[in-house]
Amino acid sequence: MVSTLELLEEHRMFGGWQQRYRHQSATLNCSMTFSIFLPGPKGDTAPPVLWFLAGLTCSDENFSTKAGAQRAAAELGLVLVMPDTSPRGEVVPNDEAYDLGQGAGFYLNATQAPWDAHFRMYDYLTEELPVLIAGNFNVSDKQAIMGHSMGGHGALMLALRNPQRYVSASAFAPIVNPTQVPWGEKAFTAYLGEDRALWEAWDSCLLMQQATHPLPMLLDQGDSDQFLADQLRPERLEAVASEKNYPLTVRIQPGYDHSYYFIASFVEDHLRFHARYLLA
Amino acid sequence: MVSTLELLEEHRMFGGWQQRYRHQSATLNCSMTFSIFLPGPKGDTAPPVLWFLAGLTCSDENFSTKAGAQRAAAELGLVLVMPDTSPRGEVVPNDEAYDLGQGAGFYLNATQAPWDAHFRMYDYLTEELPVLIAGNFNVSDKQAIMGHSMGGHGALMLALRNPQRYVSASAFAPIVNPTQVPWGEKAFTAYLGEDRALWEAWDSCLLMQQATHPLPMLLDQGDSDQFLADQLRPERLEAVASEKNYPLTVRIQPGYDHSYYFIASFVEDHLRFHARYLLA
Repeated sequence: MVSTLELLEEHRMFGGWQQRYRHQSATLNCSMTFSIFLPGPKGDTAPPVLWFLAGLTCSDENFSTKAGAQRAAAELGLVLVMPDTSPRGEVVPNDEAYDLGQGAGFYLNATQAPWDAHFRMYDYLTEELPVLIAGNFNVSDKQAIMGHSMGGHGALMLALRNPQRYVSASAFAPIVNPTQVPWGEKAFTAYLGEDRALWEAWDSCLLMQQATHPLPMLLDQGDSDQFLADQLRPERLEAVASEKNYPLTVRIQPGYDHSYYFIASFVEDHLRFHARYLLA
Repeated sequence: MVSTLELLEEHRMFGGWQQRYRHQSATLNCSMTFSIFLPGPKGDTAPPVLWFLAGLTCSDENFSTKAGAQRAAAELGLVLVMPDTSPRGEVVPNDEAYDLGQGAGFYLNATQAPWDAHFRMYDYLTEELPVLIAGNFNVSDKQAIMGHSMGGHGALMLALRNPQRYVSASAFAPIVNPTQVPWGEKAFTAYLGEDRALWEAWDSCLLMQQATHPLPMLLDQGDSDQFLADQLRPERLEAVASEKNYPLTVRIQPGYDHSYYFIASFVEDHLRFHARYLLA
C-alpha cells in the first residue's frame, strides 16, 4: 500500500521548494505532517537527504521557518526532511506537561499503555518515512541526520543504532544521556516502564560505548544554555568518545543559549559537515 | 526625558546579539516593543542602522525570527532595527479586521478619531525611535530602510519623505500605491478621512513624482504573490521611476510568493545593496 501524500503548503525558496505534507501513518496510527526542502536541480544526480529532528514542544515547522538552513542546503544540493516530534491528534494520548506526550515523542518505540499504540517514532523514522520519501521524491540513498535538544538525542541515537544507514550525524544542544537526566527519566519511565535496563537501547552515551561502526559526529553546545547542566551534559558523551576514540567533535559556543538563534548561527557549519560525507 | 528601555530578551547570534526591548512611547501613548540585532565589533567605528518595517498582522518578531538576515548583518557590520507595526495594548483602539487597527498602522499619522490619539507611527519612526536608538546603542548616524508589504510601503514612503535621512531604501512586495488599492483605501479612509487629497502625502507613487533628491532603491517582487495584482502593483512605481529617471531597480522573482520564505531568499541581496551606501 502506497501512503498518499497531501500537499499542504508550497513556497519557492532559494531557487528550490519548501513544502509541507500530510499523510496517514500506519506506524503511528494517526495523521502526520512533515516539511521538506527540495533544492533546485544540480546536474543529473539525485540529491542526498539530511534529516532534522526537532526538540520538545516543536513540530516540523520550527526548523523550517527559523533556522535559515535552506540557503546552505540550496547551495550544497541537499534535501532537508523535517518530521514532526511525535504522533498527533485527538486519537493520540497526551499529557498536560510539555515534556510528555504530543510534542515529546523522544524518537523511541513506547512499550507502555497508553502510549504504545501510537508512540513509535523510531519505527516511523527508520522504516515508514524513509520509504515514503524515497518513493515520492527524487533523492539518492545517502542520508545523514541532525537534531536539536530532544531531537539531538534522536539524531545521535538513531545514528548510533543504524550506523550503516547514515553517513554522519550532528546535534545542537542534544540530550546525550537521557537515562540519567530528568527529561529522559520522566519520558522513559512513561514510555518504556520502570525497568531501567530497557532504557539503555535509547541512550547515546550507552550506545556509543557499544559502537563498532563509528560515524563522524559534530556537536554544538552553547555555554549559556539554561538546560546545559541539568539535562544536556555533553561532557558525558565527550568522555565516552574520548575513551572509545570515537570521531566526535564537541564545540562549546560561548554565550549561546538553547534557542533557534543559536541553531541559525551554526547550522551552515552542520550542513557543510554533512555535505562532506553526503556528497563524497 | 530619557525613555527607559526594558530588556525583554537577549540571545547571542552570529557573534552578535539579538535583543528585544519594551519602552513607553510618548508619541504613541502606549507601551511598545522593538527588536534589534547588534553585530559583533568590527574595528573602532560605530555600525550604521538598517531599519526593517514589517507587514500587516506582523510584530517586531516576524523578521527577527524568520528572515535569517542577521547572518549577513553580522558579516557586513550592520545594526538591524525591527519596530512593531502599530501601537498596541488595551488602551489602543482596534478593529476586528486584520488590515485595520493594531498590527496595521500603515506607518502614517492618523488624523481621525478614534485612531488619532495613538496611530502616529510616522512620528514614532522618524522622531522618537531614532533618538532612542541613537541614545542607547553604539550606532553611527548613517541609516537605510527596508520593509515588506505594508512595511514596504512604509520603507519607501519614509525614504521618499526623508531623502536626507536615509542613504538607500528597499522593499519586498511593497504596497506602492496605497491611495489606489483596497488595503490602502480602507486604511487611509479610517486613519486620514474621506478627503483623498490628504492621502497623497503617504503614497510612494505620488511622492516619487515630486522627488527632488533621489535615493537608490531596490524592489523585489515574487510573481506568484497572491496580492500582486490587487494590492501591490509594483509596475506603477516602476513607471514613475522610468518617467522621472529615478534610481529604482525592480526585480520580478519567478515562482516566489508573499511569505517570509521569499524574504529569506533575497534578504542578503538587500543587505548588500544597503551596505554599499551605508558603509561608503
